[in-house]
Amino acid sequence: MSERPPMMTAAEVSAFLDREFPQIHIGGRCFHVEDIGPMSARMRMDYHERHVRPGGTLSGPSMMTLADLALYVAILGQIGPVGLAVTTNLAFNFLRKPAQRALVAECRILKLGKRLAVGDVEIRSQGDEAIVCHATGTYSIPG
Amino acid sequence: MSERPPMMTAAEVSAFLDREFPQIHIGGRCFHVEDIGPMSARMRMDYHERHVRPGGTLSGPSMMTLADLALYVAILGQIGPVGLAVTTNLAFNFLRKPAQRALVAECRILKLGKRLAVGDVEIRSQGDEAIVCHATGTYSIPG
Amino acid sequence: MSERPPMMTAAEVSAFLDREFPQIHIGGRCFHVEDIGPMSARMRMDYHERHVRPGGTLSGPSMMTLADLALYVAILGQIGPVGLAVTTNLAFNFLRKPAQRALVAECRILKLGKRLAVGDVEIRSQGDEAIVCHATGTYSIPG
Amino acid sequence: MSERPPMMTAAEVSAFLDREFPQIHIGGRCFHVEDIGPMSARMRMDYHERHVRPGGTLSGPSMMTLADLALYVAILGQIGPVGLAVTTNLAFNFLRKPAQRALVAECRILKLGKRLAVGDVEIRSQGDEAIVCHATGTYSIPG
Repeated sequence: MSERPPMMTAAEVSAFLDREFPQIHIGGRCFHVEDIGPMSARMRMDYHERHVRPGGTLSGPSMMTLADLALYVAILGQIGPVGLAVTTNLAFNFLRKPAQRALVAECRILKLGKRLAVGDVEIRSQGDEAIVCHATGTYSIPG
Repeated sequence: MSERPPMMTAAEVSAFLDREFPQIHIGGRCFHVEDIGPMSARMRMDYHERHVRPGGTLSGPSMMTLADLALYVAILGQIGPVGLAVTTNLAFNFLRKPAQRALVAECRILKLGKRLAVGDVEIRSQGDEAIVCHATGTYSIPG
Repeated sequence: MSERPPMMTAAEVSAFLDREFPQIHIGGRCFHVEDIGPMSARMRMDYHERHVRPGGTLSGPSMMTLADLALYVAILGQIGPVGLAVTTNLAFNFLRKPAQRALVAECRILKLGKRLAVGDVEIRSQGDEAIVCHATGTYSIPG
Repeated sequence: MSERPPMMTAAEVSAFLDREFPQIHIGGRCFHVEDIGPMSARMRMDYHERHVRPGGTLSGPSMMTLADLALYVAILGQIGPVGLAVTTNLAFNFLRKPAQRALVAECRILKLGKRLAVGDVEIRSQGDEAIVCHATGTYSIPG
């Protein structure tokens, strides 16, 4: 992949999210931008009881939210806050039950075109090696 | 598809969800089982400000939650509350921005095997014909 | 969905395929455009031994080829032969083993935007009701 | 991921394919098992004119065939030729037009359960760094 340096830092992306998407923090701040790299991003979702499901596992929708956000953040970091990218496609494989811990999502942008950006996301329980959820997604970038 | 009659009514599935997944109602009851049919189910998600995103649209994750739930409910209605089915795969196409209204999800079970159940879900704004989100998903059924 | 009348007939789409994609007929003509409707298309793949797999079933790749083609044909029929649409995303659920018979694919366009077209495809053994393969896909339309 | 050593070598998997799936070689031998590693496999598809599409690019279906095969080969290598695994789900993102060269597919098994195996596949033009097609897939393993 071409390694263009990102346009925004983790702190800048984080401030942008707080301003434009305050809703993701309703019920308590759980989502954190840990790192923005070239064509990549890392996000963390803190453990919170509103994400728990029977058997003590974390809910599928909370992992889907995290993956979608990680991809958005990676794209935003790379191209800067130019207009409103929207998700057109997301696909998930749920591989293992996550532990009752924070989740870490690592996103890699596979393609950054003029109109479409595609990436994949690996979600793990913090400190674990095994992937609990794998996602791929596409954002449409306004022209 | 074989048209086996469902094992549970909408009211029974609804009571099961309240007992086993009270978390889905955190922040206010939004999800409603409207109908359980043969190999099918219909769910509604009431409009709630916690699902709103910039531009007045409803969030992707709220639609993903609704689709996952509609598929779960269709399977549960069909086979009854026998053990804990888990999502293994979900794929979404986001087609249009939903209006600031309730969303209705119609799920159809495409295959109900011994180990895997597969279905698709069409989500529309209540009263509209256009599909705003299309999903397909697989649940693993414990043996 | 908006019901715009298609721009091309089945015969016109068929002639276009023969001219632009003669490769799909290598080894013998199997793919046939049966119908072009408003926002929809139906294709048939004749039974041919090059599509057979152990146990007498038809191969996954032959079904994937058929689904991709059915979506392409539906879009082409609707918008006419204006430039080169390319597949950006395809997702398949393989539901049942197909019989040793022709396969019929019915495609429905779920969204026809300026830049992206999204559709789903149901593949059945000819004369059967059960879906053997379900697909969703996205084509990017050159601007 | 747990790093269990594979049960079969590349030569053994290759001989198995020749015996059980001779159809993949119809029209000329293009598919080669290059490597079987722990929870991984690498396959090559030689350039052949039957895979070419207008504009000189390689067809989507030929890449889908390669990805499906790479995942099958990775699973086979890992668990040995015990029964007939079948694809239940495949999802593709087509990222770039491949060059008129051989394609190389690298598959990684993300989960190897008793009933389901999930993996992802990256396809590149031989000698290139850029991913032209990314796939994820699930095989059902007979019990």
